[in-house]
Amino acid sequence: MPNYTAPVEDMMFLFDKLRNNKNYNEIEKYKEVNSELVKNILDEAAKINQNIILPLAKIGDENPTVLENGIVRTPPGYKEAYTKFIEDGWTSLSCDPKYGGQGMPKTVSAFFDEMLSSASLSFKLYSELSIGAYNCINHHASEEIKDKYLPKMVEGKWSGTMCLTEPVCGTDLGLLKTKAEEQKDGTYKINGQKIFITSGDHDLTENIIHLVIARATDSPKGTKGISLFLVPKFKVNHDGSLGQRNGISTGSIESKMGIKGSATCVLNFDDAVGYMIGPKNKGLNSMFTMMNLERIVVGIQGLGISETAYQNSLSYAKERKQGKTNSSKSSNGADIIIEHADIRRSLLNMKSIIEGERALCFWLSQQTEVSLYHSDEAIRKEASDYVSLMTPVVKTMFTDLGMEITSDAMQVHGGYGYTKDQGIEQLYRDNRITPIYEGTNSVQALDLVFRKLVNKNGDIIDKYLNMIRNDFNKSGQKIKPFIDDFNNSLDTLNKFTLWIKDKLNNSKDDASAACNDYLKALGFVSIAHSWIKVLEICFEDYDNNKTFYEDKIQTAKFYFKRVLPRAENHFKTASTGSDYIMNFKFN
Amino acid sequence: MPNYTAPVEDMMFLFDKLRNNKNYNEIEKYKEVNSELVKNILDEAAKINQNIILPLAKIGDENPTVLENGIVRTPPGYKEAYTKFIEDGWTSLSCDPKYGGQGMPKTVSAFFDEMLSSASLSFKLYSELSIGAYNCINHHASEEIKDKYLPKMVEGKWSGTMCLTEPVCGTDLGLLKTKAEEQKDGTYKINGQKIFITSGDHDLTENIIHLVIARATDSPKGTKGISLFLVPKFKVNHDGSLGQRNGISTGSIESKMGIKGSATCVLNFDDAVGYMIGPKNKGLNSMFTMMNLERIVVGIQGLGISETAYQNSLSYAKERKQGKTNSSKSSNGADIIIEHADIRRSLLNMKSIIEGERALCFWLSQQTEVSLYHSDEAIRKEASDYVSLMTPVVKTMFTDLGMEITSDAMQVHGGYGYTKDQGIEQLYRDNRITPIYEGTNSVQALDLVFRKLVNKNGDIIDKYLNMIRNDFNKSGQKIKPFIDDFNNSLDTLNKFTLWIKDKLNNSKDDASAACNDYLKALGFVSIAHSWIKVLEICFEDYDNNKTFYEDKIQTAKFYFKRVLPRAENHFKTASTGSDYIMNFKFN
Repeated sequence: MPNYTAPVEDMMFLFDKLRNNKNYNEIEKYKEVNSELVKNILDEAAKINQNIILPLAKIGDENPTVLENGIVRTPPGYKEAYTKFIEDGWTSLSCDPKYGGQGMPKTVSAFFDEMLSSASLSFKLYSELSIGAYNCINHHASEEIKDKYLPKMVEGKWSGTMCLTEPVCGTDLGLLKTKAEEQKDGTYKINGQKIFITSGDHDLTENIIHLVIARATDSPKGTKGISLFLVPKFKVNHDGSLGQRNGISTGSIESKMGIKGSATCVLNFDDAVGYMIGPKNKGLNSMFTMMNLERIVVGIQGLGISETAYQNSLSYAKERKQGKTNSSKSSNGADIIIEHADIRRSLLNMKSIIEGERALCFWLSQQTEVSLYHSDEAIRKEASDYVSLMTPVVKTMFTDLGMEITSDAMQVHGGYGYTKDQGIEQLYRDNRITPIYEGTNSVQALDLVFRKLVNKNGDIIDKYLNMIRNDFNKSGQKIKPFIDDFNNSLDTLNKFTLWIKDKLNNSKDDASAACNDYLKALGFVSIAHSWIKVLEICFEDYDNNKTFYEDKIQTAKFYFKRVLPRAENHFKTASTGSDYIMNFKFN
Repeated sequence: MPNYTAPVEDMMFLFDKLRNNKNYNEIEKYKEVNSELVKNILDEAAKINQNIILPLAKIGDENPTVLENGIVRTPPGYKEAYTKFIEDGWTSLSCDPKYGGQGMPKTVSAFFDEMLSSASLSFKLYSELSIGAYNCINHHASEEIKDKYLPKMVEGKWSGTMCLTEPVCGTDLGLLKTKAEEQKDGTYKINGQKIFITSGDHDLTENIIHLVIARATDSPKGTKGISLFLVPKFKVNHDGSLGQRNGISTGSIESKMGIKGSATCVLNFDDAVGYMIGPKNKGLNSMFTMMNLERIVVGIQGLGISETAYQNSLSYAKERKQGKTNSSKSSNGADIIIEHADIRRSLLNMKSIIEGERALCFWLSQQTEVSLYHSDEAIRKEASDYVSLMTPVVKTMFTDLGMEITSDAMQVHGGYGYTKDQGIEQLYRDNRITPIYEGTNSVQALDLVFRKLVNKNGDIIDKYLNMIRNDFNKSGQKIKPFIDDFNNSLDTLNKFTLWIKDKLNNSKDDASAACNDYLKALGFVSIAHSWIKVLEICFEDYDNNKTFYEDKIQTAKFYFKRVLPRAENHFKTASTGSDYIMNFKFN
């Protein structure tokens, strides 16, 4: 089983030193969320994740969730852990105090999301989708529905799901077939089949609140005829107690490569009673609130699993002896492998990506809060544009790099990485879902290029690039080489951006064939931007915490020399166009 | 279950059109191996692989090999298939007719290795190591041992293994602890434990011939005291019949991420009788004959699995409808995903790598044959140097790119790629062993840079780079853009080579930290070289097979525009040196 120690020090560094963002500081409701409070929360979070949730990972992999006589049973120990988890209030961390939540900002809850992903992604998914459903209901449902459903969801006694995918529609929701027929009492009868429903059924909570997209019988075809419905597993009486079972059954659960402790369900809706949430035929809009936040969390999953992979690679590399280094002092016998240049390179690659991602994620959490809660609408809107721009980037970069990191972790472990004993191969298998679900990374890249760069809100990418170009307070001798490297990559990204904007107007296929590369280039530069923000603190505050800051500076050095330059190749190959791709005749 | 159709047409293209290599043509014993004969063999090979072996892949994954009461049982159907396999003579394909083999060159047997890898890697491994052991015995053992053991191995009634790894020694064989004590009759008593022994025990053959490296009691420490021993599972009587069970038992079998149909064994040797093969204390040399050939075959495994991944991605992309393309003519409903630029890009990436690899592998097979059987020693030696240079390249590139391709195949399949139904995730899991076993890819890169570029045989890399620079017969208008791109990359590779040679002399850690990147750069250029050789034929012979050649030319275009340029970035990042890597203080 892998070990895991929550990186509380790094998280507190971000919270203490990088929180100082004017817009974020102006959000009234977070003014009391101070360093001491957050440190306490993270320390407690570290305990439950390290001690109680981490062991569930292997248990869940060896005892996958099963469907027995129509009932989905989670792996041994999940129920006990979940009971403790909700008793300690972890489902309520970021929820509104009005419904019993603790009202913590995403700057804090994102750390918790990371820790939980590091400990057990399968276990995490049971509460994660509940938070997604909570957010969606909280933003779009009537007060009556909110009062009825949210307190139990915040408490964690009820969980939630997002029911989008159907056999013929994954990415392309316009094809969906699930029907909603309006009844005289204003409720709907839902009929259809949903697949790949994470936590679609399980034995951890008393009720499951499904958010289902479906087409009302009188709605138009395509995406413009989709509405959103709340469909509970058990109907809820007026007094809030549970009523009869609704018309929802679990057809089957998927047998998967990884996250075997998570139930991925086929759900059949047969005359299930549903309640419309938000305006009719605007279901996709309502769902996207939830999906965008969820996509960022999927990115965080990749980050969390990467952290566990790194920690275990590091400790293995310090123990395992093989081969002699170039400067070996051992006259006989081998050196520990952490002394080998190529192993060090691999470990630093992991570390520099992980810490850069964590800093970027912290920045994005701040922007998310500003976009939701700042008092000035213009500021909210600007932050919202940044969040929407960075959502596909974080989802894709963190999950793809998560595969790179878990794969490199296997290589560090050699043959032991491929066998089940060490649990490294499980990290690799579990993480492999993250580039797929919530929209494949290819779809994220299309979303970025075709919908996020320039849209009805303006030239978002231009605003973002200008912002990061001028976002430096410090220009000392020591930070200069980093800023020079950064500016070089930013120049490339600028060229790439001009190129792709031109193609969006004049040659869409070139843009489509380039979107994956563009996302990567933007991602590497965005992470570098976060590294620069970190470096400013390191040089400024150096004497107060030399060891910590020196570690950061040296880690950053690796990122700027070995990781960031990858951006350039993405531009080079993508800008060769697409005629040779589009004209190809596949046999 | 994935589908698979053996790419006989492409293989025959290579055999018919690229075989025309002067040195290879001079090998006497292959003069009768003509096109018709090879076509017949490949057609038969396609049948057994498509019809009988392919279904074993899923069966083996769902019913892993088990150890019951000391006996290793292969998955259902393996034994029947293996019986047919040896009856049809497939184990004997490349073996010496003297021992019952068919005497086919590697140019043919490599195609068979590829097909078998495409069909089921787990099943393949039972015969693959036998061929490795056969080669080693054939090169290094006495006539008496050869006559006693080889006919049964060629026939496939007995199989073979390579027993190298021990708990504390994988890469670093100098650490091995297995002891060999000489007996009065000249035999040895072998004692020790070997781990990760592929096909170390199973129920497919009557006997298993282990090739074991061990240290004679009077031998020095380190790699200079290692000898090679033949240790049969059942002792063999003078008349060739099976005698008593030898002192070898299976301690356990590994539970692995993939290749679950393959038995990966812990073998305990307790006073097992062994026979020394080759000179005392030169065991590693003897073993390396086998390991080098085996490493190329591991590369071919990556190629074979990539082919299956590509074929299934292509057919899925032609069926699955999602989203609209930029030029969609559909007024409602979605387009098939193969019309989307990013899916096409992904498919062409797979195809252009696979076909380039197959051509490189064909060239390498020719060189291997020349190195073994050409009558002129100087020519043999030159070919041998090329083979030894390309061995780590092919092993690493084909297996790493195999991970890229099987991963992209999962992405093309979306959520269905992660579930067990389609079998795509199994290709990904099965292939994941290939960058690890037979020396991790990191070790391959060290081997390339520190032992293969420049060694006692001279400046091998210089000779190779000169050869590929001047290896063009044609210089028409149409091939020119390809050659220009090739020369650009070759220039980068030349610079990288000069840089790394300098570092080998002056700053070894820089070379160590760069070796992975160097291998990749060399690999991309080597595959490009093979593409150029293919293109020469395409343009020369164009009118005789337009459709086929046009497909090749367009595929090559993708390789030169989108794949080959990756070489450059490897040089750029690697040449930043290693001081910031070596001086880093890991916590």
